[in-house]
Amino acid sequence: MEELVGLREGSSGDPVTLRELWGPCPRIRRGVRGGLEWLKQKLFRLGEDWYFLMTLGVLMALVSYAMNFAIGRVVRAHQWLYGEIGDSPLLRYLSWTVYPVALVSFSSGFSQSITPSSGGSGIPELKTMLAGVILEDYLDIKNFGAKVVGLSCTLATGSTLFLGKVGPFVHLSVMIAAYLGRVRTATIGEPENKSKQNEMLVAAAAVGVATVFGAPFSGVLFSIEVMSSHFSVWDYWRGFFAATCGAFMFRLLAVFNSEQETITSLYKTSFRVDVPFNLPEIFFFVALGGICGVLSCAYLFCQRTFLSFIKSNRFSSKLLATSKPVYSALATLLLASITYPPGVGHLLASRLSMKQHLDSLFDNHSWALMTQNSSPPWPEELDPQHLWWEWYHPQFTIFGTLAFFLVMKFWMLILATTIPIPAGYFMPIFILGAVIGRLLGEALAVAFPEGIVAGGVTNPIMPGGYALAGAAAFSGAVTHTISTALLAFELTGQIVHALPVLMAVLAANAIAQSCQPSFYDGTIIVKKLPYLPWILGRNISSHRVRVEHFMNRSINTLAKDTPLEEVVKVVTSTDVAEYPLVESTPVTLTLFSETTLHQAHNLFKLLNLQSLFVTSRGRAVGYVSWVEMKKAISNLTNPPAQKS
Amino acid sequence: MEELVGLREGSSGDPVTLRELWGPCPRIRRGVRGGLEWLKQKLFRLGEDWYFLMTLGVLMALVSYAMNFAIGRVVRAHQWLYGEIGDSPLLRYLSWTVYPVALVSFSSGFSQSITPSSGGSGIPELKTMLAGVILEDYLDIKNFGAKVVGLSCTLATGSTLFLGKVGPFVHLSVMIAAYLGRVRTATIGEPENKSKQNEMLVAAAAVGVATVFGAPFSGVLFSIEVMSSHFSVWDYWRGFFAATCGAFMFRLLAVFNSEQETITSLYKTSFRVDVPFNLPEIFFFVALGGICGVLSCAYLFCQRTFLSFIKSNRFSSKLLATSKPVYSALATLLLASITYPPGVGHLLASRLSMKQHLDSLFDNHSWALMTQNSSPPWPEELDPQHLWWEWYHPQFTIFGTLAFFLVMKFWMLILATTIPIPAGYFMPIFILGAVIGRLLGEALAVAFPEGIVAGGVTNPIMPGGYALAGAAAFSGAVTHTISTALLAFELTGQIVHALPVLMAVLAANAIAQSCQPSFYDGTIIVKKLPYLPWILGRNISSHRVRVEHFMNRSINTLAKDTPLEEVVKVVTSTDVAEYPLVESTPVTLTLFSETTLHQAHNLFKLLNLQSLFVTSRGRAVGYVSWVEMKKAISNLTNPPAQKS
Repeated sequence: MEELVGLREGSSGDPVTLRELWGPCPRIRRGVRGGLEWLKQKLFRLGEDWYFLMTLGVLMALVSYAMNFAIGRVVRAHQWLYGEIGDSPLLRYLSWTVYPVALVSFSSGFSQSITPSSGGSGIPELKTMLAGVILEDYLDIKNFGAKVVGLSCTLATGSTLFLGKVGPFVHLSVMIAAYLGRVRTATIGEPENKSKQNEMLVAAAAVGVATVFGAPFSGVLFSIEVMSSHFSVWDYWRGFFAATCGAFMFRLLAVFNSEQETITSLYKTSFRVDVPFNLPEIFFFVALGGICGVLSCAYLFCQRTFLSFIKSNRFSSKLLATSKPVYSALATLLLASITYPPGVGHLLASRLSMKQHLDSLFDNHSWALMTQNSSPPWPEELDPQHLWWEWYHPQFTIFGTLAFFLVMKFWMLILATTIPIPAGYFMPIFILGAVIGRLLGEALAVAFPEGIVAGGVTNPIMPGGYALAGAAAFSGAVTHTISTALLAFELTGQIVHALPVLMAVLAANAIAQSCQPSFYDGTIIVKKLPYLPWILGRNISSHRVRVEHFMNRSINTLAKDTPLEEVVKVVTSTDVAEYPLVESTPVTLTLFSETTLHQAHNLFKLLNLQSLFVTSRGRAVGYVSWVEMKKAISNLTNPPAQKS
Repeated sequence: MEELVGLREGSSGDPVTLRELWGPCPRIRRGVRGGLEWLKQKLFRLGEDWYFLMTLGVLMALVSYAMNFAIGRVVRAHQWLYGEIGDSPLLRYLSWTVYPVALVSFSSGFSQSITPSSGGSGIPELKTMLAGVILEDYLDIKNFGAKVVGLSCTLATGSTLFLGKVGPFVHLSVMIAAYLGRVRTATIGEPENKSKQNEMLVAAAAVGVATVFGAPFSGVLFSIEVMSSHFSVWDYWRGFFAATCGAFMFRLLAVFNSEQETITSLYKTSFRVDVPFNLPEIFFFVALGGICGVLSCAYLFCQRTFLSFIKSNRFSSKLLATSKPVYSALATLLLASITYPPGVGHLLASRLSMKQHLDSLFDNHSWALMTQNSSPPWPEELDPQHLWWEWYHPQFTIFGTLAFFLVMKFWMLILATTIPIPAGYFMPIFILGAVIGRLLGEALAVAFPEGIVAGGVTNPIMPGGYALAGAAAFSGAVTHTISTALLAFELTGQIVHALPVLMAVLAANAIAQSCQPSFYDGTIIVKKLPYLPWILGRNISSHRVRVEHFMNRSINTLAKDTPLEEVVKVVTSTDVAEYPLVESTPVTLTLFSETTLHQAHNLFKLLNLQSLFVTSRGRAVGYVSWVEMKKAISNLTNPPAQKS
């Protein structure tokens, strides 16, 4: 009976082989096979992209981990060399400085020789690309090797150069995504699709951040905040998936390599959990946010000014144009000499790696209180159990070294950002912020040695909490993001300071966003990349500005039957690249005279447009490009009438 | 000299009074005054909205806290009554059941008599509104009182009815925002602006979630995921600001009322931090996510089916239409009878409040291991030190009660969602998920009493971690959101399970999103509200679908000089509400035949549009509304050719 049914079904539907027919329970087997087929189809139809995102996450995690591993070896070799070189001051000095100088020169020369666009973090360029501007070859896979090797060399200089890896990793991840996308379209035989590609790139940016910090939440949010102005919830889900795959793989490798027992956070803290802070401390957290905001404005201003100076100064611009490695070597020599531990480096905790900087700054004891009665030694060798001893100097005390670190690293970091090598600038900013917070926290710990009284119970102040808030607030203000607060929690594995840190970040952002363009926008401005600003101060009157108020009315239209001579005349008389062809121009969208500025701005940002024609009553009457938008936006904040 | 300078400056610029002129240091004072003026202008120009958002946050926090306070009193009165009523079983039963029945009847009658739209959570309707559909009076401030009183009564029934407050709070917050917005526009004399208003509503939704849970991060992300499909980073910043104000105020009030020593999280946990889980447990976390995903599909399906049944069944629909309080009373009587503690309620931990449910489920000890050798008593009175004893039954063990709780609450919750009262459905879902996770966690703890061996070191399994992951995964799957993972961390103040919880949530979402519409979309479908679905399975071929492929070509155009008779003829012959008027129709945007489906979908979602005309070569050739979009989207996933 079973067989008969199988046969009947088989004859009406799919062909059934004899072997299947005579096997046991053909009906069940066919059912199972059908189910598997359905699952496969379901997975492939809906899941095509998910495989892609998973591959991307795993690949980037492997790259990140392998790079960390290699860098760790190189750094250890340097430490060994520096330790074993003997007591001759000259030899020690040379061993301290020559190593980073050589690495940076190589990094600069190697990466620049392969591709000139591999320098810097890459985020400003990506931001420009995601806004719809085409930067030739910027996502070419041949840049990948240059950037990986260059970045590894940069990072192998350790805290001498004091640079990070987030930005370049975002760039690397996006490069891989673009490459995988091209491979896929080539395999399937589909034509490339711009909007599809952009969806992938946004997810890839999240993977880049997530695989550096092992932090999927803030990876997604940070990359969204930095990269785009509008995004769809759909993209955000994809980003989460890819970032989770990447972060999981990255932390898994650390467990497999026996570095850790299980998957935990990178900079584990041990803050007190029952009463992490007393209520009045909220005020100081917000004040810290304000301080970080003001300092971030100063930093952003100095950084942008110095970068412009370097680009415009005759000597430095010539040096940078002709012999980048020489400039890099000179700058690195200066930075390395300052951080030489027996010299000024003693006051800069320069024997600590950047990870150790953070680990020590997030320490939950007050160094100032601990050193009030007994001074710790400054050991010959770094003591891994007491990293914070590096921050102590008997004459200058903790406050002196922290303040000195802040002042020196402030300009040293600005100098370092001008070196044309692949490098990230987020981590140093994060550490600078932690130092600002630590300074305030230690000051409060000294001012209130018993803690701030609240309701009869006192709990001592934890300067580590302020360091955390300072790091999040300063880095958030410099990059104009809020997700750095979340990053601070994901990095430390504790979320007890949720509200104070968030409030500090908001305060810092309020100041920074109203005074200075972000680090990335600033770089875009200095590099003269195309740029469409925000509509700031969205007061109600701004909603009344319409396209007809600011569109460019001087357009030249060409009819389909225009004779050749006229076309040539029109084309040569103007310098625009696009003409509306009245009969069959393949436009997908035009604006109307009545479209408001906000709507047009949203469209430009959402659809990554650069210019649109404006029609009224079916006729093209003008066009709007970034130039007109920018002017209209600046008129909103500085009305022409008040300009005089 | 000073004075002279002051005079000269005064004469050329602002007028200087004599008093100012003769006071000390006029120059400095003028500088200070100028600076203050600048600051004031800066604050007011950029800050106008920020004051608005802060007011909103603080107001909602006050409402939330006052409501919690009042509900706490009513619940305590009920507990006192139930405890003091004597030993007569009938009296005890009556005191247990009559109280919630009376409250729910009043809630239903009162709120429905004032406004019929105050029932349910309100999120589905808000979602529809934010998509551009106008629901009359839905945001009227007169609903506010009805919803507040009704919701307070609902919540005062405690865990008998087992309902929450998130959804209504989002609705309340949005109502206040709309009201404040109207007040503002009336004060300034500005016309109302749709897009401005929507920006505020999205931020208000975040405030609603944040003031219920004291969780700003997940408040913002959850409301974005639930409410909108596209959003701008700018809206997200505003949301963060408002949500932080709300959450801070909400937690601050708890400190001022001496409930807490400082600002901490609502459901504090004390999970082990050094090794919160062993690596192989990741597998079980993902499996838990899968289980939650499947169960959420079952729940969503049953819930939607039952809701349709109640609406279509003759008896229940008549009862609901004519006498809502009677239906509410009957349903509540059934639910209260089942939860009567000396009866079946003994197996349902029904003496615990919903907060205590969560507190006990997140306990980091294994109940199954603790009760293996010694059984805890079932005390006459609830023991606040040993909440989990309520979950223990000597015959049924922990597993029996947890499973029974799950099965019973599954249908009881579905029944409760049909009662026409203001109520939220997120919290019960969250608790159900925690029970699912706890069940798996306890089973694992029994299966591996020593913990899962990894690298020679063993750490016992913490079932509380599974409860956390289950809560996040189940609630995430039911609502189609990922930010529930973050909510779990913010609620508990610990982020040690970051990756496993996120992976569980992603797994649960993958299943739920591909099989069922979300809880809110499901309600939209059942309530027959307008609805524009996602483009699922965004494979590359979907990017090639263009507007001309699916637009409606049967449009009637009216020329400006059409005679009246013809206009009447056209208008009466069709049933559309809009006609393109060729000469001067005030359109702000049209589509072109070449616009792709994705672009059109993005535009509709981003600009909250419901229909657009399509032009080709300057002439209107068709129009696209949600109907055409829906058809095109469903054709993507089920191509017409395969439909047969």
